[in-house]
Amino acid sequence: MTYLQSDSLLTAQKDGSKCEKGYVIGIDIGGTNLRLALADAEGHLAGKWSVPLNGVSDVEAVLDLIGKGVEYLLLNTSSSRHALKAIAAGAPGITDTNQGIVIATSYLMGWRDVPLRSLLEQRFQVPVAIDNDVNLAALGESWAGVAKGVHDFVFLAIGTGIGAGIILNGHPFHGNAWAAGEVGYMLVPGTQEVPGERGRPGALESMIGGEGIRLQWQKHWSADRTKLPLKLTAGEIFDHALEGEALAQMILQQSSRLLALAIYNIATVLNCPLFVFGGGVGMHPALYKTTQDILHQWKMRNEPNLQRSELGSDAQLLGSVALALDLLALESKTR
Amino acid sequence: MTYLQSDSLLTAQKDGSKCEKGYVIGIDIGGTNLRLALADAEGHLAGKWSVPLNGVSDVEAVLDLIGKGVEYLLLNTSSSRHALKAIAAGAPGITDTNQGIVIATSYLMGWRDVPLRSLLEQRFQVPVAIDNDVNLAALGESWAGVAKGVHDFVFLAIGTGIGAGIILNGHPFHGNAWAAGEVGYMLVPGTQEVPGERGRPGALESMIGGEGIRLQWQKHWSADRTKLPLKLTAGEIFDHALEGEALAQMILQQSSRLLALAIYNIATVLNCPLFVFGGGVGMHPALYKTTQDILHQWKMRNEPNLQRSELGSDAQLLGSVALALDLLALESKTR
Repeated sequence: MTYLQSDSLLTAQKDGSKCEKGYVIGIDIGGTNLRLALADAEGHLAGKWSVPLNGVSDVEAVLDLIGKGVEYLLLNTSSSRHALKAIAAGAPGITDTNQGIVIATSYLMGWRDVPLRSLLEQRFQVPVAIDNDVNLAALGESWAGVAKGVHDFVFLAIGTGIGAGIILNGHPFHGNAWAAGEVGYMLVPGTQEVPGERGRPGALESMIGGEGIRLQWQKHWSADRTKLPLKLTAGEIFDHALEGEALAQMILQQSSRLLALAIYNIATVLNCPLFVFGGGVGMHPALYKTTQDILHQWKMRNEPNLQRSELGSDAQLLGSVALALDLLALESKTR
Repeated sequence: MTYLQSDSLLTAQKDGSKCEKGYVIGIDIGGTNLRLALADAEGHLAGKWSVPLNGVSDVEAVLDLIGKGVEYLLLNTSSSRHALKAIAAGAPGITDTNQGIVIATSYLMGWRDVPLRSLLEQRFQVPVAIDNDVNLAALGESWAGVAKGVHDFVFLAIGTGIGAGIILNGHPFHGNAWAAGEVGYMLVPGTQEVPGERGRPGALESMIGGEGIRLQWQKHWSADRTKLPLKLTAGEIFDHALEGEALAQMILQQSSRLLALAIYNIATVLNCPLFVFGGGVGMHPALYKTTQDILHQWKMRNEPNLQRSELGSDAQLLGSVALALDLLALESKTR
């Protein structure tokens, strides 16, 4: 149920020596898994821990699991609780980083106005920062991934749904009501023509989120058109597209064109030089390649560079470590 | 050809007393007019001057005219050249504010890579800042208009074409290649389905810029459908819509819906609380009202507030004064 894993990206430090400046912990509270990572003050990763969250969404239960993870990670580096200096955590959904409140998560967790920062501060007696999962993933890529050194970029998380983490001048841009980057609601030629009702999947998301792609496949499927089954995941459909299957290629083309339009629109607003594709669907090489080809064809004046996430499913976790390190640095300065 | 006009928005100061901290000048280099405004270090407007630019686009000729305006304004306040402490200027088009270069203006002026900042600094021997016209208009509204005290907002300039000035954390956001806010290129349901060729008007602009609206009218016009003439300006079409003319109302509805879609899309990216409508077409009450009604119908979770520009055609000029005052404050600090 738990694991500790050395990290290939960052130098692991497992010699058990007391690190003078202490440790930070990053926490990724996902829809299906809870993941923690421990790093020293220099950002060297010293351990990871994770546990499935299937069915567990009660805040106290999640906090208890976090407690277990923290204990495990500190024990594993032979460190006392006092060695822990800062924590950062993120959950999917809209997060008020000033107040430290998770305003609303997706239906999987169903959190509403959870004061996550103060709950963690009370429990662990260290300073805590929080942000949403997509912004943390963007921070991860910025710290240790494909966006290192890029001040302005957009992380596009395409999984079941779609969201963007927008980094401007090196920091997440949150928007007035913490809802910047909700690009799954964007309307482009080929989506529905007006916004849908509140609480429904967004226009873009309902076409090219993982669930949307699956439904598009089923909508266009008929036994005459394809020998493939009616029930396929987005990833399977894209795999078949790579193998040349015609209907799968049509769905891939349609998805890529809509995604390229959304990127084009975001670029007209922000003139960002880089878009990083993340999430289970976004990481698929077929979607990435086809979207890039379409953008090339349009010969934009300032065509953004597209990259696949380098950190993959670790992006959010490493982003929370990066945020915790920022917090530690800030605390050291103000002390 | 020139005029001096007292200003109703800001306290004029014309008593001829030497202002100890000196004066700043804001310059609006428009497609058709060159306009200057003089203000003291406290931001009190002390005079305005303008001259038509019909046909004049040569950089040296424009600089000579600016020289005349500066001389006139200083003379008018009985001030010597030494009283002038800072200048800010803007032209329509893409502007590199770091290097102080106007990279490209619209066809009306045809400037390419004009080092406007250094040209003005050499001529007037004071520090100079430059930005593009839409960003200056946004700064104007932020300083003395409807966006006072709003940290994040979008100024939508809708004239012949369309552009956005994006203010984030109180400052213009320029983008990686100084092309943020080029929202006239946005694609929404109802525009063309893919980006057009480079150098052509943008997809949105070609539908709801002043020229686009005029062409839409002509496209839908027939003697059977309306008693109005084939040749009307966007403003005239909207006037007729307000009076109930059916075809004009159809064009107004179509324009407003496309504009509402663009605002919706920008809001999904930036989650901005305020959009300010400016420019000859954007200031028309019919477009503003109908766009607002459409947005209301959509019941967005974070519906932005729409406002018409308070400064109107003065927005850019007052924005350049605000930028010059910022520069003066910065210079005082670093001296």
